[in-house]
Amino acid sequence: MTGNGGDGSVPGQRDTTALDLRRGTPVRDVPAPSPAPAAAVPTPGGHETTAIDRGQVPPPPAAAVPAPPRGVEQHLDEILSAVPLPDPIELAVLDAQGLLCAEEVVSQRALPAFDQAALDGYAVRALDVEGATPAEPARLSVVGETVAGLSGPSSIGPGMAHAVAAGAMLPAGADVVVPGVWTDGGTVEVAVHAGPEPGSYVRRAGDDVAPGTTAVQVGTPIGPAQISLLAAVGRDRVQVRPRPRVAVLSAGSELVEISTDPGPGQVVDVNSYALAAAARDAGAEAYRWGILPAERRRLSEVLESQLLRSDLLLIAGTLATEGDLVQEVLAELGPMQFSQVTMHPGPVQAFGRLGRDSVPVICVPGEPVAALVAFEVFVRPAIRVMLGKRQLFRRTVQAIAAEQLLSPLGYRQYLHGQVMRHPDGGYVVEPLGDGGEAMLARMARANCLIVVDEDVTEVAAGGLVTVMPLLLGG
Amino acid sequence: MTGNGGDGSVPGQRDTTALDLRRGTPVRDVPAPSPAPAAAVPTPGGHETTAIDRGQVPPPPAAAVPAPPRGVEQHLDEILSAVPLPDPIELAVLDAQGLLCAEEVVSQRALPAFDQAALDGYAVRALDVEGATPAEPARLSVVGETVAGLSGPSSIGPGMAHAVAAGAMLPAGADVVVPGVWTDGGTVEVAVHAGPEPGSYVRRAGDDVAPGTTAVQVGTPIGPAQISLLAAVGRDRVQVRPRPRVAVLSAGSELVEISTDPGPGQVVDVNSYALAAAARDAGAEAYRWGILPAERRRLSEVLESQLLRSDLLLIAGTLATEGDLVQEVLAELGPMQFSQVTMHPGPVQAFGRLGRDSVPVICVPGEPVAALVAFEVFVRPAIRVMLGKRQLFRRTVQAIAAEQLLSPLGYRQYLHGQVMRHPDGGYVVEPLGDGGEAMLARMARANCLIVVDEDVTEVAAGGLVTVMPLLLGG
Repeated sequence: MTGNGGDGSVPGQRDTTALDLRRGTPVRDVPAPSPAPAAAVPTPGGHETTAIDRGQVPPPPAAAVPAPPRGVEQHLDEILSAVPLPDPIELAVLDAQGLLCAEEVVSQRALPAFDQAALDGYAVRALDVEGATPAEPARLSVVGETVAGLSGPSSIGPGMAHAVAAGAMLPAGADVVVPGVWTDGGTVEVAVHAGPEPGSYVRRAGDDVAPGTTAVQVGTPIGPAQISLLAAVGRDRVQVRPRPRVAVLSAGSELVEISTDPGPGQVVDVNSYALAAAARDAGAEAYRWGILPAERRRLSEVLESQLLRSDLLLIAGTLATEGDLVQEVLAELGPMQFSQVTMHPGPVQAFGRLGRDSVPVICVPGEPVAALVAFEVFVRPAIRVMLGKRQLFRRTVQAIAAEQLLSPLGYRQYLHGQVMRHPDGGYVVEPLGDGGEAMLARMARANCLIVVDEDVTEVAAGGLVTVMPLLLGG
Repeated sequence: MTGNGGDGSVPGQRDTTALDLRRGTPVRDVPAPSPAPAAAVPTPGGHETTAIDRGQVPPPPAAAVPAPPRGVEQHLDEILSAVPLPDPIELAVLDAQGLLCAEEVVSQRALPAFDQAALDGYAVRALDVEGATPAEPARLSVVGETVAGLSGPSSIGPGMAHAVAAGAMLPAGADVVVPGVWTDGGTVEVAVHAGPEPGSYVRRAGDDVAPGTTAVQVGTPIGPAQISLLAAVGRDRVQVRPRPRVAVLSAGSELVEISTDPGPGQVVDVNSYALAAAARDAGAEAYRWGILPAERRRLSEVLESQLLRSDLLLIAGTLATEGDLVQEVLAELGPMQFSQVTMHPGPVQAFGRLGRDSVPVICVPGEPVAALVAFEVFVRPAIRVMLGKRQLFRRTVQAIAAEQLLSPLGYRQYLHGQVMRHPDGGYVVEPLGDGGEAMLARMARANCLIVVDEDVTEVAAGGLVTVMPLLLGG
């Protein structure tokens, strides 16, 4: 909520999201003379891909990112193994919706609480109606009527019937309910045309849940059906895994507030909005803090106070340059590792555990498309760990690529696409745009991420690729 | 929140959910003498199924439900054609998450706002580097450096290069960015080893979104990517289809509050909780009102005030009996049609438009399993209509039945089941429990509804059935 304007001291949004992979990688015709520049120029980092390697562009020097490049899995593993599982909390059942049950809910009650008719009919003694037929019906005296909700206990003896509605208490002495349509429907005397087996159409107390048995287990996601069951066993509160509190902050001297008209070189802060929405979508209680202040002391205060009130800090903005103020202040709060992760878009990602309580802090790139991709890859699974979920990752499917896909060798590439069901079964996926620019408008049209593995440089049209549907509703 | 105890005047929960279809329907061995009772007894309503027809049970007489039985589609169509589409409202972008955009968002800005470098390198004139090779590089003077967020405009002339970071403004005069790795990385003079085509690695102002073009269309679901795009074009508020306000109420003299130990014949109110959760899950802003008062004037007041503040009233409890107070009071507020719908569980459902504003009111059965099934079938699609969604219904799949399924002829049956992926592809579904009792504990273990059509009485083990996955997360 606090703007810091563009004072020019902090280099900002510096990602490689916007690379034109189709033109910039060796796997495609490069409109450049041979020998191909990527092959001809010695590349210190050992990268295979011209367009990804930024170490050659001075300044900042390559030394600004001291750690060697690491794989997506390595970075993800580091995050997932370090995020804590917050302690369970007790919530009102309706507030527990969407969370995981964190206790073994043992019912103190029987469900149903009393023997009851399972349908409308007559409660009778099975013995009295045994062998009845339409030709030779059993004739019984109707001694009363019970509807659901009436509490007066009743009873029958031999030769008697009691009219009952579904859900009504079974009169003492009765052991079966004869469905109304098996009778003549009499009100004083009833003719029963068939005798059900003893116990038929009777719901016994505890049939659904017996006292002392578990109604809802630890780890069960609480949806409407679980809320129904919890309420039925008398629980208005339940222990659950809480939503992790995620503070979302943006870094970058080029950033201005959404309501401000950006001046030359300035960019509106979109990441604090988009990442807060994504965090909420993943199950977190997300707070959008906004643009980090440019003043050192104030910056330090903001970060410290957010560390105190959050389970996870999420910062967007590339901070991997020398002399970056945010990076410096983070370093004062604890060990923060900036890494070149072999992914595209990316590649600069960071993770650390800072402050007195070692709160996990994840930094994602400042370029908005790269920020949301990094969220999918690293942050969403981390939030799900904190929620106690077993299924951390989105389901992926194999889909037929509608077009040729190119990808830099050694980098895992995430492309936005439109996945559709194939008329003959399975899925087809179409990458959005020309694969060159990382565009917000294209991302907004996507319904999936296409994942091209590190060792693949080309997927032919008609070939199979891995697709991660994003399930944004509609 | 107001209990009404069991004063005995209002017959309550009277559904057929709990029927043992396996034993009670003609399609299975009935432990009764032949001729089968269902065939032998004239059935006034024309129903084919012993266990479903409750008209024979006196009292209440069959006349309590005056309308003829109707199909599921007919009842659903009546509801869907009558629920209104609330007017769009303007919300802050983060509050718009999960809703449908209700305006054509035309960007007043260009995105990006200025020509910029798409990656780290040197901004140059294409002419100056044309034909360059590693053996015969083009040598240019480095006249400056620009990082993202710096606003000072710069320019180059012939023979000059300007070091640029990704996202930095392109200096005037430059028409291409040479990737850093295609150069020797010089800081005073740079040797360029290859000349990209004019325009390469440059993002032009408006490439993503041009001023005057549509950024987000009417009807687009607003997720993190759309929020990113809306923020980028400077929108902090947006017109959306609002969440319909749904008030959830329970009716039934047998009902007691969740925190109360139910006495004999009493049942805890679970429906106001479960249906509020289900309504929220479907996208509504749900208010749990709780148990309707038993006193006539107070009941009338509650219903009238809820009609004033809601877009939809949802009432659980079977009210289709003569002399039912809730039914009487509803009738005073407008036309309310109670129907026997040919579905199981069910069958009594109701719909009307009541009060000054003709607010839709849906009544579902009081038995908790039947209530949530009716919610899925009738209420969830109605809420989605009100949200403006095009896709009203859950996706269904065909699955192999792991067991034989029996279903009453003429009734559409909904059974809770566990659907799993088949190792050879496709799905297998297992019904939960023995199909007899409608149990909360079983419903809570289900991940789908199995739908058996009206004209099907038996699905053999290994046969295909329609399955509606419920997607409860996990």
